[in-house]
Amino acid sequence: MTAYRFAVAVMPKEGILDPQGRAVEQSLPHLHVADVSGVRVGRRVELTVEAPDPLAARATVERLAGEVFSNPIIEAWTIEALAPEGRP
Amino acid sequence: MTAYRFAVAVMPKEGILDPQGRAVEQSLPHLHVADVSGVRVGRRVELTVEAPDPLAARATVERLAGEVFSNPIIEAWTIEALAPEGRP
Repeated sequence: MTAYRFAVAVMPKEGILDPQGRAVEQSLPHLHVADVSGVRVGRRVELTVEAPDPLAARATVERLAGEVFSNPIIEAWTIEALAPEGRP
Repeated sequence: MTAYRFAVAVMPKEGILDPQGRAVEQSLPHLHVADVSGVRVGRRVELTVEAPDPLAARATVERLAGEVFSNPIIEAWTIEALAPEGRP
């Protein structure tokens, strides 16, 4: 068994209202920040999976991304492989 | 002025308690998922900055990451340059 580390990005789907992103955009003029648009706020989940090989590890992450980390009706997720913990 | 798109990852600093990550870990046995550890839950913010060059765009993102998107006492952030919106 080898330890594999992943990051899952969970973002509101295109066309889905993103109240957090709108709130950030509306706060920017008060901070005298212009020229910023298209703000979308989602989640990032990092995790380590012990598995016999990278494919098995990724299968576990895909299951968690779709069933635990995201609401597939309104959110889309992508998986990124990271370096093992403690290594750059 | 050119449009630059970025993602900012905001994660709890090492050693800082992460209640969301703990909650996910504690839910996994009920889902019959083993061999998952080190779950950390943070935020991902995507945004577009109009700027004369990439350095100026990144400076804006760094300011927002430190002042708006994160609480620097308990969270660390990293910036990733993305492809412009609508392109892969």
